[in-house]
Amino acid sequence: MDKLLKGRLEKIFDNCKGANNIIIANTESQDPNFRYLTRFKSGVFEDDMLIASRNGVELFTSELEYETAISQKLEGMQIRKVDKRNRNKIKKVLYNKLHNTIIGINGSFMPAATYLRVKKEYRPKRIIDVSECFYKARVVKDREEIENIEKAAEITKAALEKISKYFKEGITEVELAKRFDELSSELGSEKPSFDTIVSFGKNAALPHHMPDNTQLRQGDIVLIDAGATVNGYCSDMTRTFIFGRDNRESREKEMYNVVKHAQELAIQAMKPGATGDEVDKAARSYIDSVFNGKYKGTFIHSLGHSVGLEVHDGYALYPGSKVTLKEGMVFTAEPGVYVVGFGGVRIEDDVLITKKGNVLLGRGELG
Amino acid sequence: MDKLLKGRLEKIFDNCKGANNIIIANTESQDPNFRYLTRFKSGVFEDDMLIASRNGVELFTSELEYETAISQKLEGMQIRKVDKRNRNKIKKVLYNKLHNTIIGINGSFMPAATYLRVKKEYRPKRIIDVSECFYKARVVKDREEIENIEKAAEITKAALEKISKYFKEGITEVELAKRFDELSSELGSEKPSFDTIVSFGKNAALPHHMPDNTQLRQGDIVLIDAGATVNGYCSDMTRTFIFGRDNRESREKEMYNVVKHAQELAIQAMKPGATGDEVDKAARSYIDSVFNGKYKGTFIHSLGHSVGLEVHDGYALYPGSKVTLKEGMVFTAEPGVYVVGFGGVRIEDDVLITKKGNVLLGRGELG
Repeated sequence: MDKLLKGRLEKIFDNCKGANNIIIANTESQDPNFRYLTRFKSGVFEDDMLIASRNGVELFTSELEYETAISQKLEGMQIRKVDKRNRNKIKKVLYNKLHNTIIGINGSFMPAATYLRVKKEYRPKRIIDVSECFYKARVVKDREEIENIEKAAEITKAALEKISKYFKEGITEVELAKRFDELSSELGSEKPSFDTIVSFGKNAALPHHMPDNTQLRQGDIVLIDAGATVNGYCSDMTRTFIFGRDNRESREKEMYNVVKHAQELAIQAMKPGATGDEVDKAARSYIDSVFNGKYKGTFIHSLGHSVGLEVHDGYALYPGSKVTLKEGMVFTAEPGVYVVGFGGVRIEDDVLITKKGNVLLGRGELG
Repeated sequence: MDKLLKGRLEKIFDNCKGANNIIIANTESQDPNFRYLTRFKSGVFEDDMLIASRNGVELFTSELEYETAISQKLEGMQIRKVDKRNRNKIKKVLYNKLHNTIIGINGSFMPAATYLRVKKEYRPKRIIDVSECFYKARVVKDREEIENIEKAAEITKAALEKISKYFKEGITEVELAKRFDELSSELGSEKPSFDTIVSFGKNAALPHHMPDNTQLRQGDIVLIDAGATVNGYCSDMTRTFIFGRDNRESREKEMYNVVKHAQELAIQAMKPGATGDEVDKAARSYIDSVFNGKYKGTFIHSLGHSVGLEVHDGYALYPGSKVTLKEGMVFTAEPGVYVVGFGGVRIEDDVLITKKGNVLLGRGELG
């Protein structure tokens, strides 16, 4: 069997001892775990089904994508074409394989209707939600995964460095977001890892503000939160700029410096053994206490989240978070302060946990 | 209550007489029905929950997007901010509202884990899958929806007209797809309605081939299948070109002419009262019989599908399809022929069913 596939299957089934087989079912969208197991670089595979066991992976695909699948087949993978002629035969094969067994599903993705159909059609002994096993396997990245995230981060970092060339009075958030997406695409991103956020001025006070027709004006905050994908792997970074006027005493600058320092404190804390709570606290306690509590309570989201095949890849760093950092994990560090009616600042990087500490991705320092 | 909201709720609950309340739960992605009921133009609303009844819509959102929601609030919509402080109180309110009632869910979107949580947490009398009620409501578009799809189709049509300027020997599928996405974005698309398909030469024989590093050569087929979004509404169109060499007798041209005529036959058949089976047959029986059956069996997918908030918006036109066309529906008409090892041709337009027949979208003819 392909080594990487074998390693991933072992990680998953070690975490999920109960399951005999795991069903991954795509909808119009691909279950991220489909990619994790197939490592397919092209193809959509909508509505396709995959059955994983410790012994390998069986893919059921339509005539539409059979050739695409075959051309990327890994050792340890069986690919079966499903069409009108053999549909009933395959149903029987599946029934014999799955009936009275324990089936694992990705409960965080598989639609309820599919779950109910699996239950009715195969009458398994039990269905268990193995989404956590996948997240647990995926949170520690292997070499191939880290290389992909590094490339995605390099792209986003470069695009964020180039984007300020396009700042000019009157440009709208929507226009600037498009410009950013073009830069990112030219630099090699398959597609944005999520809808690019561009917020001017007081719009930046809303962490999830989506670009609209607000125009850029002198002195405005420009907050850009964006990510790229490479072979399906995501980056996620944020930069906050102040357009034009360089007023050393501005409130915007004060906020920027607070967030910048908070991020440094968080990154210092990111190393094997640290918990999500501790990392979050490193930034949050500083933000809450600086200037006699002037910014207390203005950091209204988590410090960060794991990044991988999904932008939010299963784990997060927040007050009370029990996740313990380990070598090979990748988390964002993204403190922010938000003042409704005025504006907000967020700075975000993707941080790979290493044996001794961490390294920021996107700097070309991995090689 | 807002008139459009009232109309949509009535359509849904008339189709789903059993349900007292319907729960729509976003994940990282937005349930398309969330947009259908809120008509929000900005915001992500990840993990947010919405409860719909005949009397209106109640949205439960986080601090992160509360302001964004409030700014787009419709009459008949209640917006509640959920935070740490009131989480338990809201749980109780929801329990009192939902316990022992019949809850509708979108089983084609709501993850199994959420379904199981709803079941356990609220102990309803019953949970029913109302996905079909939404699709049934959504398949007949109202004025606002048609305008959005028309705009999206105009963008894709214009981009497909401009793209041939960029054909040149050696350009790769990935590069051309990016160029297309940029054109589409410049023309006003929010984002591609799906990953743009560009296939050169024999790659065009795989309907779902994804762009790779194949380079364009003289005489190649160039198949582009792409869509835009406007206020969340999708277009979906395909054009097939032959690059360079104009060989009147080529096999590519023969295939093109077969598909072109098949599409004309399908579009002629698209009018109120026609069934999906009939429309599909109009194209398929021609493809299967022309040139003494030379292309029989090479049209390996459905004739079309409804388009709206999703690219595949619930209904499809295929052999045996029982959907009956009605005024206000929008379907693709996309016959194709595919010859593995050689190439393929597909032509696709978005067709609005009108009182008397139909009109192709994207021609600016709706005004």
